[in-house]
Amino acid sequence: MKTLTVDAASRKYDILIGPGAIAELPRALGARRAVIVTDANVAPLYAERVLDVLERAGIDAVACGIAAGERNKTLATVERLYNEFAERRLTRSDAVVALGGGVVGDIAGFAAATYMRGIDVVQVPTTLVAMTDSSVGGKTGVDLPQGKNLVGAFHQPSAVIADTDFLATLPERELRAGLAEVTKYYCLGETALAELIPGGDIAEIVYLCCRAKARYVAEDERDTGARAALNFGHTFGHAIEKYFGYARYNHGEAVAIGMRLALETGEKLGITERGAAESALRLFEAAGLDTALDIPERELVALMGSDKKNTRDALRLVLLRRIGEPVLREITAAELEALL
Amino acid sequence: MKTLTVDAASRKYDILIGPGAIAELPRALGARRAVIVTDANVAPLYAERVLDVLERAGIDAVACGIAAGERNKTLATVERLYNEFAERRLTRSDAVVALGGGVVGDIAGFAAATYMRGIDVVQVPTTLVAMTDSSVGGKTGVDLPQGKNLVGAFHQPSAVIADTDFLATLPERELRAGLAEVTKYYCLGETALAELIPGGDIAEIVYLCCRAKARYVAEDERDTGARAALNFGHTFGHAIEKYFGYARYNHGEAVAIGMRLALETGEKLGITERGAAESALRLFEAAGLDTALDIPERELVALMGSDKKNTRDALRLVLLRRIGEPVLREITAAELEALL
Repeated sequence: MKTLTVDAASRKYDILIGPGAIAELPRALGARRAVIVTDANVAPLYAERVLDVLERAGIDAVACGIAAGERNKTLATVERLYNEFAERRLTRSDAVVALGGGVVGDIAGFAAATYMRGIDVVQVPTTLVAMTDSSVGGKTGVDLPQGKNLVGAFHQPSAVIADTDFLATLPERELRAGLAEVTKYYCLGETALAELIPGGDIAEIVYLCCRAKARYVAEDERDTGARAALNFGHTFGHAIEKYFGYARYNHGEAVAIGMRLALETGEKLGITERGAAESALRLFEAAGLDTALDIPERELVALMGSDKKNTRDALRLVLLRRIGEPVLREITAAELEALL
Repeated sequence: MKTLTVDAASRKYDILIGPGAIAELPRALGARRAVIVTDANVAPLYAERVLDVLERAGIDAVACGIAAGERNKTLATVERLYNEFAERRLTRSDAVVALGGGVVGDIAGFAAATYMRGIDVVQVPTTLVAMTDSSVGGKTGVDLPQGKNLVGAFHQPSAVIADTDFLATLPERELRAGLAEVTKYYCLGETALAELIPGGDIAEIVYLCCRAKARYVAEDERDTGARAALNFGHTFGHAIEKYFGYARYNHGEAVAIGMRLALETGEKLGITERGAAESALRLFEAAGLDTALDIPERELVALMGSDKKNTRDALRLVLLRRIGEPVLREITAAELEALL
């Protein structure tokens, strides 16, 4: 098992990575009572196993299921969790376990962040996207009808347990989505990942991604500076997801297309060194990610304007100078539209 | 005008106190756009005045009204605010102004804490309770059917503006409720307040209370240690409010009764020095606060068990050794019932 420490300003915590890592959950939890939040996809696969680990350690735990999918990442779902927590009289010394993919992690994390002004949450990601990206760093939240993640909180987990055994049941398409986030870390400088996509040691892949993310989170927990680099491909990606009503592409697929667009935008602006885009595109191809896109530029750019990282007047894009060297650029919607 | 600085771990900010302090709002705000959250009681009295101050400073501001009263301190109200913020495309560089009493401050503060994972809020308290207590320190939140303030966040304001002119329209009963919180600060050691209740310089009263509170918040922002002293009277008080369905007593009145009970409990346990209770009771009387109570002990104690500061097994009470010396005591429900 590999271990990493995230030294965020608000909290320091460990990420445990590898097959069988779930055995460490009781120790990581440090609570006598826990509610496991999971969804309808993950519950039948792993809820029993996790309950078992906790019960054998003498921890009083129950599983609480929520409906699966981004469309349920709403305040209504969070309200259900609050009621569940309150009915069980969860106190500040109890904890939440978020067992699932990014959506479960975001919802359960936000419920934990705001129940009694914050109780502990241990993130137990079961998808590659969640293991490599969303479970680390404390971003939690839900969507509003007006946009994704418009409601949320920064709430670092008390631990992250990435048991790579849980990936055994992950659908091929979800694995590919995860490899999109992995490619993001390649673009941001984890070049060793190129040798590992696809088919390399998955625990090593998760480790390298988490190590990179931990560095950004340590430097800029609140996302007011360097952490913005992690949005590479995401401003485009969010707009793409939105355009198709979150139906056609999943998050990773949309971000892969977004990274391709960001690389091309950088090339057209003369910012991105020749060859950088090519090396990333090779990884998308190796991962089986299709980055073709058919949306009118005007509509794509208009949707990017409502992304929450942007102030009203200009879009802020993460571009690459070269692999490992992200750079923030402000660009008006009109300029971007012309470029694309 | 008096100024104080709160040096909380997560943020440092000023409290401006005195007649006409609202003139400082544009400078305190530091944003180009703002939504003023206020309620149906306060809006007709002060919304125009505050909008005016902002507009004359070139700040694009609108007022957003919510229904008044604790019964509207709900997730549904917060959701309405989120939608309002999103429709107006509020960004991270914009701000919220919470104009009203404790309920408005809690709701608007929580909406600001969680919209886009946190945007600035300036607290502009219009009641004595809010000026002396709830607007300072970053506790925000709403109630659940299962209990008060079960959902919330720590989110320090970027400034607090306590314009004592706003107290001119405060109903007598609300003023008395405020004097209950003022008496709490007397009990915690601000003995100069004894000379000021009632009828002394109100700005000086607010200043002394805020100064005391700022000390606790600086020492223990997250309420895991010394800040617990501020709950003096509150564990009893919350139970009393709950018993009467938040209808018979307002928060301050319930807390006054709660302080009386805490003082008596301390005396019976031999913890509270003779004379301490008496000096506090004199202030309640001077303020016109009736602290008689008629609830069966068993029911009161049972309701105290669901207060969120308590772990499952014991009640944690703030008692006084003497005026200025609070002490935390764990006591079982059975022991407390017998004592009362």
